[in-house]
Amino acid sequence: MAAAAPPPPPAPVPTPPSTVPEGSTPLGFPVFARIRLAQPTDVPHIHKLIHQMAVFERLTHLFSATEASLSSTLFTSPPFQSFTIFILEVSSQPYVEDILHNNNPLYQPKVQVVNLDLPIDDPERVTFRSTGSSSDVVIAGFVLFFPNYSTFLGKPGFYVEDLFVRECYRRKGFGRMLLSAVAKQAVEMGYGRVEWVVLDWNVNAIKFYEEMGAKILQEWRICRLTGDALQAYGNGH
Amino acid sequence: MAAAAPPPPPAPVPTPPSTVPEGSTPLGFPVFARIRLAQPTDVPHIHKLIHQMAVFERLTHLFSATEASLSSTLFTSPPFQSFTIFILEVSSQPYVEDILHNNNPLYQPKVQVVNLDLPIDDPERVTFRSTGSSSDVVIAGFVLFFPNYSTFLGKPGFYVEDLFVRECYRRKGFGRMLLSAVAKQAVEMGYGRVEWVVLDWNVNAIKFYEEMGAKILQEWRICRLTGDALQAYGNGH
Repeated sequence: MAAAAPPPPPAPVPTPPSTVPEGSTPLGFPVFARIRLAQPTDVPHIHKLIHQMAVFERLTHLFSATEASLSSTLFTSPPFQSFTIFILEVSSQPYVEDILHNNNPLYQPKVQVVNLDLPIDDPERVTFRSTGSSSDVVIAGFVLFFPNYSTFLGKPGFYVEDLFVRECYRRKGFGRMLLSAVAKQAVEMGYGRVEWVVLDWNVNAIKFYEEMGAKILQEWRICRLTGDALQAYGNGH
Repeated sequence: MAAAAPPPPPAPVPTPPSTVPEGSTPLGFPVFARIRLAQPTDVPHIHKLIHQMAVFERLTHLFSATEASLSSTLFTSPPFQSFTIFILEVSSQPYVEDILHNNNPLYQPKVQVVNLDLPIDDPERVTFRSTGSSSDVVIAGFVLFFPNYSTFLGKPGFYVEDLFVRECYRRKGFGRMLLSAVAKQAVEMGYGRVEWVVLDWNVNAIKFYEEMGAKILQEWRICRLTGDALQAYGNGH
């Protein structure tokens, strides 16, 4: 659905391997998480991620996007001016110099090391192997956002349409990392707000958002004109 | 606030002057309503309209837009690709050929005649006299919208951020005309949705929107990260 899925709670405090006493079992499994701009070659993976989101939200009956419809409507403007996607990748190894994913001067990929208690068993690592990267790099999630506008502030903001992390990567801080990357971009561009929506019964997500400083606007409701009603109204009914 | 104000209910059925029986008092006062793309010279009027909206919503403490902030953030992209404003003008006379407002090939102004029972007494007609038009043309309202994106549909839509009609022009069908112009544009561009928000206690507006075929999404809440919280989160907190 047209909405940000709840991000996982923050990751546990990382345990750097260097602090593990000699002779004991290492506690941490480092994961190298990278956020980068999506590019047209990512569309097959993006399509699969959106479908997984539709399954998660039990809304597959509303899912009609195809790789072709995504390809023809995304990537039509420079990043941040219109629809923009950040891809979240994970790897057990540091990223090697990566011309394919480093060549956009508007956004340098950001890498963060996350130390996990247990290794992640990803049953779909072959399906989600990142195009053009070493075999170890896997796509774990994405965030789609675009500029919105506040007439009261007289300046733009960002609206987060979708935030999704694949199941086996949840509850490790990756959702927060994606949302934080959008907020950081908004601050860098001097934008006034970042907004998204949440389901009113999703108390865990609401608590998480409030703890990060977001306000939940209780009085506003979204109105949607679509399908036949849009056609009729747009044609002058 | 970042939201569409409720539009007035539809205008009464027009009474063409030709149907008035001879000898009786004419019932209709025709008003020529025109919807056109805003341009940079409209910014002073747009700024005043937004301020009136803030007064109407009792939210002037949140109003910080200036003519300069509007000028530097609007009109940075071609119409419909990013933030787009339709201006509503009214005149008691037909529009003469108007090079200034007819020169955008992406949108030809649309004129509609509305027959009113009583003439409109506009106390601000001098302030809102349209720039570059004959003295009779007055700006009565605006709608600001921009593309949003549905990953489930795999295509864009429009989000209506603000819809405002000045007080003396309300309840005559002009709000509906502005919203309809956005819907028509969405249909022409093959877009999948038009969305906006409404206050949950505004039962008249909700009824009006439902009658036009819109769905009110009851379960979703808007989350907003702004001000110091955005700065803190964007800077890595």
